[in-house]
Amino acid sequence: MPFTPTAYDPYDFANRRHIGPSPEEMVKMLEAVGADSLDQLVDQTVPGSLRQETPLAWPPLPEGELLVRMRQVAQKNRVLQSLIGQGYYGTVTPPAIQRNILENPAWYTAYTPYQPEIAQGRLEALLNFQTMISDLTGLEVANASLLDEGTAAAEAMVMAQRVAKSKATAFFVDYNCHPQTIAVVETRAAPLGIRVIVAPADQLDAGAVFGALFQYPGTDGRLRDFTPEMEALHAAQAIGIVAADPLGLLLLKEPGAMGADIAVGSAQRFGVPMGYGGPHAAYMACRDQFKRSMPGRIVGVSVDARGNKAYRLSLQTREQHIRREKATSNVCTAQALLAVMASFYAVFHGPKGLRAIAERVHVMAVRLAGGLRDAGFDVSPERIFDTVTVEVGPLQGAVLRAAVAEGINLRRFGETRVGISVDETCTPETIEKVWRAFGVAETFGNPDGVALPEDLLRESEYLTHPIFHLNRAEAEMMRYMRRLADRDLALDRAMIPLGSCTMKLNAAAEMMPITWPEFGQLHPFVPADQAQGYAEMIADLSAKLCEITGYDAMSMQPNSGAQGEYAGLMTIAAYHRARGEARDVCLIPVSAHGTNPASASMAGMKVVVVKSAPNGDIDIEDFTARAEAAGDRLAACMITYPSTHGVFEDTVRKVCAITHRHGGQVYLDGANLNAMVGLVKPGDIGSDVSHLNLHKTFCIPHGGGGPGMGPIGVKAHLAPYLPGHPVTGGAEGPVSSAPYGSASILPISWAYCLLMGGAGMTQATKVAILSANYIAARLSGAFEVLFKGAQGRVAHECILDTRPFAEAGVTVDDIAKRLMDSGFHAPTMSWPVAGTLMVEPTESETRAELDRFIDAMLSIRGEIADVEAGEIAIEESPLRHAPHTVEDLVADWDRKYPRERGCFPPGSFRVDKYWPPVGRVDNVYGDRNLVCTCPPVESWADAAE
Amino acid sequence: MPFTPTAYDPYDFANRRHIGPSPEEMVKMLEAVGADSLDQLVDQTVPGSLRQETPLAWPPLPEGELLVRMRQVAQKNRVLQSLIGQGYYGTVTPPAIQRNILENPAWYTAYTPYQPEIAQGRLEALLNFQTMISDLTGLEVANASLLDEGTAAAEAMVMAQRVAKSKATAFFVDYNCHPQTIAVVETRAAPLGIRVIVAPADQLDAGAVFGALFQYPGTDGRLRDFTPEMEALHAAQAIGIVAADPLGLLLLKEPGAMGADIAVGSAQRFGVPMGYGGPHAAYMACRDQFKRSMPGRIVGVSVDARGNKAYRLSLQTREQHIRREKATSNVCTAQALLAVMASFYAVFHGPKGLRAIAERVHVMAVRLAGGLRDAGFDVSPERIFDTVTVEVGPLQGAVLRAAVAEGINLRRFGETRVGISVDETCTPETIEKVWRAFGVAETFGNPDGVALPEDLLRESEYLTHPIFHLNRAEAEMMRYMRRLADRDLALDRAMIPLGSCTMKLNAAAEMMPITWPEFGQLHPFVPADQAQGYAEMIADLSAKLCEITGYDAMSMQPNSGAQGEYAGLMTIAAYHRARGEARDVCLIPVSAHGTNPASASMAGMKVVVVKSAPNGDIDIEDFTARAEAAGDRLAACMITYPSTHGVFEDTVRKVCAITHRHGGQVYLDGANLNAMVGLVKPGDIGSDVSHLNLHKTFCIPHGGGGPGMGPIGVKAHLAPYLPGHPVTGGAEGPVSSAPYGSASILPISWAYCLLMGGAGMTQATKVAILSANYIAARLSGAFEVLFKGAQGRVAHECILDTRPFAEAGVTVDDIAKRLMDSGFHAPTMSWPVAGTLMVEPTESETRAELDRFIDAMLSIRGEIADVEAGEIAIEESPLRHAPHTVEDLVADWDRKYPRERGCFPPGSFRVDKYWPPVGRVDNVYGDRNLVCTCPPVESWADAAE
Repeated sequence: MPFTPTAYDPYDFANRRHIGPSPEEMVKMLEAVGADSLDQLVDQTVPGSLRQETPLAWPPLPEGELLVRMRQVAQKNRVLQSLIGQGYYGTVTPPAIQRNILENPAWYTAYTPYQPEIAQGRLEALLNFQTMISDLTGLEVANASLLDEGTAAAEAMVMAQRVAKSKATAFFVDYNCHPQTIAVVETRAAPLGIRVIVAPADQLDAGAVFGALFQYPGTDGRLRDFTPEMEALHAAQAIGIVAADPLGLLLLKEPGAMGADIAVGSAQRFGVPMGYGGPHAAYMACRDQFKRSMPGRIVGVSVDARGNKAYRLSLQTREQHIRREKATSNVCTAQALLAVMASFYAVFHGPKGLRAIAERVHVMAVRLAGGLRDAGFDVSPERIFDTVTVEVGPLQGAVLRAAVAEGINLRRFGETRVGISVDETCTPETIEKVWRAFGVAETFGNPDGVALPEDLLRESEYLTHPIFHLNRAEAEMMRYMRRLADRDLALDRAMIPLGSCTMKLNAAAEMMPITWPEFGQLHPFVPADQAQGYAEMIADLSAKLCEITGYDAMSMQPNSGAQGEYAGLMTIAAYHRARGEARDVCLIPVSAHGTNPASASMAGMKVVVVKSAPNGDIDIEDFTARAEAAGDRLAACMITYPSTHGVFEDTVRKVCAITHRHGGQVYLDGANLNAMVGLVKPGDIGSDVSHLNLHKTFCIPHGGGGPGMGPIGVKAHLAPYLPGHPVTGGAEGPVSSAPYGSASILPISWAYCLLMGGAGMTQATKVAILSANYIAARLSGAFEVLFKGAQGRVAHECILDTRPFAEAGVTVDDIAKRLMDSGFHAPTMSWPVAGTLMVEPTESETRAELDRFIDAMLSIRGEIADVEAGEIAIEESPLRHAPHTVEDLVADWDRKYPRERGCFPPGSFRVDKYWPPVGRVDNVYGDRNLVCTCPPVESWADAAE
Repeated sequence: MPFTPTAYDPYDFANRRHIGPSPEEMVKMLEAVGADSLDQLVDQTVPGSLRQETPLAWPPLPEGELLVRMRQVAQKNRVLQSLIGQGYYGTVTPPAIQRNILENPAWYTAYTPYQPEIAQGRLEALLNFQTMISDLTGLEVANASLLDEGTAAAEAMVMAQRVAKSKATAFFVDYNCHPQTIAVVETRAAPLGIRVIVAPADQLDAGAVFGALFQYPGTDGRLRDFTPEMEALHAAQAIGIVAADPLGLLLLKEPGAMGADIAVGSAQRFGVPMGYGGPHAAYMACRDQFKRSMPGRIVGVSVDARGNKAYRLSLQTREQHIRREKATSNVCTAQALLAVMASFYAVFHGPKGLRAIAERVHVMAVRLAGGLRDAGFDVSPERIFDTVTVEVGPLQGAVLRAAVAEGINLRRFGETRVGISVDETCTPETIEKVWRAFGVAETFGNPDGVALPEDLLRESEYLTHPIFHLNRAEAEMMRYMRRLADRDLALDRAMIPLGSCTMKLNAAAEMMPITWPEFGQLHPFVPADQAQGYAEMIADLSAKLCEITGYDAMSMQPNSGAQGEYAGLMTIAAYHRARGEARDVCLIPVSAHGTNPASASMAGMKVVVVKSAPNGDIDIEDFTARAEAAGDRLAACMITYPSTHGVFEDTVRKVCAITHRHGGQVYLDGANLNAMVGLVKPGDIGSDVSHLNLHKTFCIPHGGGGPGMGPIGVKAHLAPYLPGHPVTGGAEGPVSSAPYGSASILPISWAYCLLMGGAGMTQATKVAILSANYIAARLSGAFEVLFKGAQGRVAHECILDTRPFAEAGVTVDDIAKRLMDSGFHAPTMSWPVAGTLMVEPTESETRAELDRFIDAMLSIRGEIADVEAGEIAIEESPLRHAPHTVEDLVADWDRKYPRERGCFPPGSFRVDKYWPPVGRVDNVYGDRNLVCTCPPVESWADAAE
C-alpha cells in the first residue's frame, strides 16, 4: 500500500471528534431525510435570502497545537498572590474536588436537575449547599445559588420590594458595600424606578425605604452589628438585607441573629478559584415566610413511588415559570457546578475545619495589622475579621508597586489608603512580604491574638447535620463524590436531546485550560499588565464572535443568557436615552422564551405581545399593527431565530425592517445560534443586538445547572452603550459583579473556535440541522412533528406532539420517565407548546446514538398504542411505572408485563445499563412537605414505612 | 465562641486526608484490639530492639503549598521539542484519554485484574491492546505489556533460549539496536552465562546462536528486511526477534511476514508522554506455538456462569506462578495503565487515522532529509521511515547547540553525526527550525514524496476488528471509556484489602503534577540542564527515602518491584565480584514471595531454600546450617520483613548477623515497608539492600496492573555497584531502558513524602498496624487468624484461614466472589499459604469502611455455617452463585434464598450498589478455548446460546 503524500488529511478535530456522524453515517442520514446532499438539505432549510456571503475563514488547530497555543497565552497572565479582597479571595481548591468534580465530565456535562430521578447526585450536593448557607446565615431557606454577589444583591432588592409592606420606592445601600455591588444594584434599580440611596449605615432613614442592604464585613473591613437597623426597618415594614462573607460567618454573629430578612453573598472563597471574576456561586437565604418570593432554584426533599427519599427542585422554579412581563427577575440559571464545589468544600472541612481556616485568616490579619501599627501606620479598623486599610498618603502608588515587586497585589483604596484582605492561601511569609512592601522589616513570629468585636462573636452552632461530619479521609470523600456522580445521567453516558439547550460535546481539550492556575488564580481587579493573556484571549474570541454574528462589538460581562438579554435591552435603552428619545415599548411574540418579557420588563420596557400564526411564525400583520401603534414609543422587538418552534422563518428581514422603520432596535435572541453559525449572521439580516449562549453553541458545559455565559454582540452604533464597570470604566452601569463576567470559562469557547476553524463550525451547524431532520424523519410516522419550514424542514430541533395520547391517559411525563429506562434524558417538555417534546440532538451525536434514541421513542410509541388499544391500562403499563429501578427487580414482581420488558426496553444498554437510583418522584408530596435543607437521617426511615 | 490563636492546628493532610480513621474512630478501634494506646499497640507489635532511635523529621506541607512547590520545581525543567528518537518520541496524548483515563481514579486506582468479574473494563481495554499488537506485528499472540523495550528484549532473549531447539549459548544482537536495549540485554545475559554477540546484521552466524535480535527501523534509521536472517536462524533451530516501532509498522512490512518468532517494542508513541523515560507500555508478541512460554500477563476470553462473554487473565500468569528458582524471568507486573492508553489511542484514531499519522511523520522526515541534502549535507539512509543521521564532522556540538537555541533537541550520534527522528508533534515549522540549526534557510513548502523501501511496504491489513472502527466522535469515545470504567471496581468505590499489595490512598494532589507537560514531555536523554527540576526532585526524594530506610544511596532505575530485587542482587553480585570473591549462594526462606528466588536465579545465584518454623518465622537453626554450608560461597540472603506471614519476627537481626558472619549480604524485600516507615529502618537492623515498592508504600497507584516503581536503597559499600546506563554513565550495566526508570511518576511519591512529613508517615505506619489488628480482632471469632507475633499481634496485614471450610465444600474462591456482592475486591487469595485470605487494610481506610468489610465477612461466615449445618447445599448457596448480577434478578429466580439476600448481603450499598457486569467466570473454558485477541462480535452471540 504505497501512498501519495498529498492524500494525507491533517488531523481534523471538527469532523473526527466534535461532529458526531461520520461521513458514511451522514450519507445514510441524508437518505432517510430524502435529501441528495447536506448542502441541499441546508438550502431547503435556511432561506437563501438570509445566507451569509463570505464563509467563516480562520483555520483549525489540532488538539496538540491548541494546548501549546493556550499555554503560551496563559503564560502571559502573571499569577501573583492577590490580597485585594473586595469580594474575591485566594482559596485552596482541595485537589480531590478539582479532580473529581471540576475536571470530571460526570459532573460538568450534566444538565439542570429538572428530571429528578436521574439527578439525585447533584440534587444532594445542592441540598448540602443550601443547608450550609442556611446554617451560616441563620436564615431558614436558601436557594441553590445565584450568579454573583452583585446580581444577588440586586435580586434581593427587587425581592424586598415584592415582599415589603412598606410602600416606599427608595432602597438604601450602605456605602460600605463593595463598589461593584453598589453599581450593579444601581443599574438594576434605575429602569424599575427605584431610587437608590447610598450612605453610611447610621444615616438610614428606615421610613423612607422599602429595604436596605448592608455589607458584612464592610468593603473597608469594618464590622457592625446591624440589629438596630433591622429593628428600624421592621418597624417601618421594610426589609433588611445583609451581604455577608460566609468565611466571616464562621466566627461572627450571623445575619439571621441580627434580624435580617435576606442574606446574600458569594461562596467563592469556599474553594472556588477567583478565575479573573468568575464563575462562582453567589447565595441567597431568607426567612421562611418569604421563601415563595425567592428567585432562583430551590432543591427540596420528597419521596419516590416506593416512598423512599428523593430530591427534586421545589417551588416551580423552572425557567418557563418566569413570570414573563410581570417579572422583576429573569434568573433562570444558577452556578450549580460552583455551588457543588463549595458544598463539598464544606463537607471536606466540616465545621471545625472551616472554623480553623477562618481563625487562621483572622489571626494572620491581626498580626499583619499589628506589625503595621507597630511601625507607626494608621491601620483601620481596630476590630476586624480579615480586612484592613492603611493610610499611606501620597505613597499609595509606591506601596502598591512595592507589593507587586514582592509578588503581592493589594487594593487601591480611595486616594490615600491601601486595602489588604488576608485569605486561606496566606502564610507567615505572605505577611512578611506585605510588611516589606510598606518598608517594615518584621518577622511573623507568634500570632498577636484575636481582634473580633466582642459583641459580634458567633454564638450559634452550624453545620450540625451528619453530612458535614463524615470522616474526612480523602478515600471516603472521593467515594462520596463518585457515588453521587454515579446516580446521575450526564453527557458522559448518553445524549441529552434537550430542545433549546444545545447539549453538545464539551471536548476534553476545551476543558483543560480552565484549571490551569494562570487562568484560575487571577483576581478580577489585578493590574492590566498581569492579565495580558486574558486580554489577548478575550480580544480574539470577541473578534471571532463578531465574525460569526456580523456584529461590531462584544461585551463579555453578562454571565448567563438571561443576563445577556437584560444587558442587551439595557444597551438599547441607553442608546435611545442618549438620543433623547423616550421609547419604552418592546414587541415580543407570544411564543418567546419566558425570559424575553422578563428581561424587557427589568429593562424598564413595556411588553407588547405579538400573535403567532398557526405554524408558530410571527404574525406579520399583528406585528406591523403593534409596531405602528407603538410609534415613537417603540424601543425594541425581541425575536428568536430560528424561532422557538425550531423553524427558519423567512419573514425575519421584514420584522427587522418594520422595527427599524419605527425607530426601534432589534434584539435577536441567540439561544438558537447553533442553527446559524456559518450560515446566517444576525447582524447581517437586520438585528442590532444578540446575546450568545456560550454554554450552548460554544461548548461551555452546563455544569448541572450553570455556569453559563451570555455575552452580547451589538452593531457599532450601540457599542458605546455596552455595560461598564466601576473598576474598569465605561459610561454605563455594570450588569454583573466582574468586568468580564465568568472570564475563566471563556477559554472553553475560545478553544472550541480555534479547534474547529471557521469551516468546521459551519459544518457543525449543517450537521446539527441534518440530525434534527433525521430524527424528525425517522419519528414522523409515529409522532406528529409540529412546525416545519416552507420546504418541510425543521431547523436544529423538532417538536413532537404528545397531546394526541392524552385521551388514553398518557402524559408527556410518562414518556419522559420511560426514556430513562432506555438510558436517556428526556427532551424539553411542554415548551414552547404544552404537551409536546422538543428534541435537539446537536451535531455531536453519532448516528448510532440517534438511532438508539429513535428506537427508544418508537418502542414507547408502541407501548402507547397498547394503551390506546386497551391491551393494558395506563396505570398498569410500563409507561406509568417508569422509571424502573433495581428495587422493582428485587421486590415481588406483580406487573402486567415481564421484568425484561420493563427494565430493558429498546435503546437500553444491557451490561452497561444506567439504573435510576429512585423511582418516579412525587411532586405533590414534595410541595406539600417543603424541606429545603438536609433532612434528619431518621426522618426518611419513617417516610419510607 | 471566642478562641485563642494557639488552638489553631494547621491544615493536616496526614491525619485529615490520608489516614482513614479519625481520632475518635481510633479510640474505638484500640478498644476492640484491647490496647490502651496506639503506641502501646505498636510496642506490642514491633520488637523494641529494632525500633529506630530518631524520628523522621521533615515538616509536612499543606496541599495548596505543595502544588505551588511542585510547580516551582517543574518549571526548572525546560520543555523543548525532542527529536532525539532512540526509542522515545513526541506524541499527542488525546486530551479525552488524558482526562478520562490517566486522570481518572476509576482507571488509575484499579488493581491488577486477577478477579475478572470486577475487572471487565480494563480487561477489554487490554484485550484491545493485545489485538493491536498482534495485528501490527503480524504475530498470533501478544501479551498485555511489559516494562520497557530494553527489558522486553531481554525477556525475549531468555524466552528464545527456553524455546529454541538450538543448543547454542550465544545470542546475537544487531549493533543497530538502541544502545540502551543492547546494554540491558548484556546486563541480563551475563549472570545467565549467555554470550552476547553485538555486530552488524549481515555478520550473523545463525548456527552459533540460539537467537538473534534486530531493530526495525535501526537506531540510525536504516530499514532492512530480516527475512534472510530469519530463514537462517530457523534453519539452525534458533529464534528470531525483531524490536519494531509500532508506528513504523503501519507502513512497513511486519515482523511476522519476515518470519520473526518474537517481536518486542514500545507503544510509547501511541499517545503516552515520554515522561523522562517512563512509564510506557512495552509489548511482546510471538508465534502461537510459543505462547505458553511468553512472560507477562495475557488477557483471554471465556464465558461466565450464564454463558455470556467474559474476559479474564489466561495461562496462569499470576505472580505466584513465577517459577521460583527455576525462573528465567521475574516479570510480575505490566504497564497496564499505559497499555490501556495506547489501546485507546488506536481505538481513537483507527487504522486510517494511525496510518495518516505515520504517513505524515514519514513525509515530513523525507522533506527534512531532502532539505538537508539540497544544502549539501550527507544524510543517511536514503530509504527511511522517520529517522536520519547527518554528518557534521567537528560541528556536532555546534549543531546540537544551535538546535537547542531553536527549541529543539537532536541526538548526538557517534562523534560526527547528528540524529533526527520526526514525530507526531512535528509541524512544517519544526522542520524549518531543524534546518536553521544546520544553517539551512529553507521553507517547508510542499512535501517531497515518499522514501519507503519498495520491498518493505506493508501489504497486510490491520486493526480490522470492529472495535477499531467505532465512530470516533469524542462523545462516543468518552462514553466507551466511561462504560468500561463503570464495569470495574477500584479504590474510588471501595477498599481493596489485598495483603502485600498495600492499596492505600492515591491522593489527587499527588497525582496532579504527573500530567503537567514539564514532567510529561521530557525525553530521557535531554541535556542535564533541561532536567534540573527532575534532578532536584530525585535528589530530595532519594534523601528522604534514605532517611526512611537507613540506606546511604538510592537508584531510581528499577521500574518494578521484581526489577528492584534483580537490581539489588546484581549490585550484591557486582560487589562480590569486585572483591574477587566467587559467591553465588542465596538463602531464601520457603515462605518468600516467588519473585525472590526468580530474581536470585536471574542474578546468577544458586537458590538455597531455608525452612520456616510452624509459626511462619524463619527457622534459625536451618538458616544457620545452610549459611555455614554455603560458607565462602554465600552471596546473600533474601528476607522479607515483616515476614510474608504478616509478622514482625524478632530474629531478623540474628539472620543478618549470621549472613554477614559468612561474608554474605542481606537483601531485605521492601514489599512490606508500609509496616516499617518511621518505626524501623532496614539499614539499621543489618540489611544491605532493599527495593522500595513506590506503588505500594509510596502511593503510586496500581493503574490496573502497573506502572510500578522499585528503586533500591543500599548501604554505602554497595553504592559504587548500582546500575549504570550507557547514556548517563556508571560502571555497571543498566537494568532498565531509562536511567531513572519510570521517572514521570516519581512526583507522586515525592508529593506523598512532602504532604505527610516525617511524623505523618510514621503515624500512617502505626495506623496501618492498628487497622490490621482491628480486622484480626473483629474477625477472630469467626475465622482463625494465622501467624501472630510474640505478643499476639499481627503487623500490617493478617491471614485468615479458610481451609476449615473445605470439608463443607466451601472454597476460597466462593468467599472471594461473595465479597463482590458486598462491593469488595477480595483479599489476596492462597498466598503465602494455600486456602487462606491475606487482608491488608492500609492506613487509608476509615473505620466505617473497615466495618463494612467486617460485616461482609461475618455474613459470609454465617452463610458458610449454613452450609456446614446442612441447611443449604454449597451448590445452591449464595456463596457458590456469587457474584450475583442484574441478569440473575431479571431471570426467573429459582434459588433457595431470596433475591434480597443474594444481591444485598451485609456491607453492600443499597442505592449505590456496584453490580458485577458478569457472573462467575469459567476458567476451565477459557483455558481450553484460548482466545487472546478481540473475538468476532458474532461468536459470542453463539456462545451465549
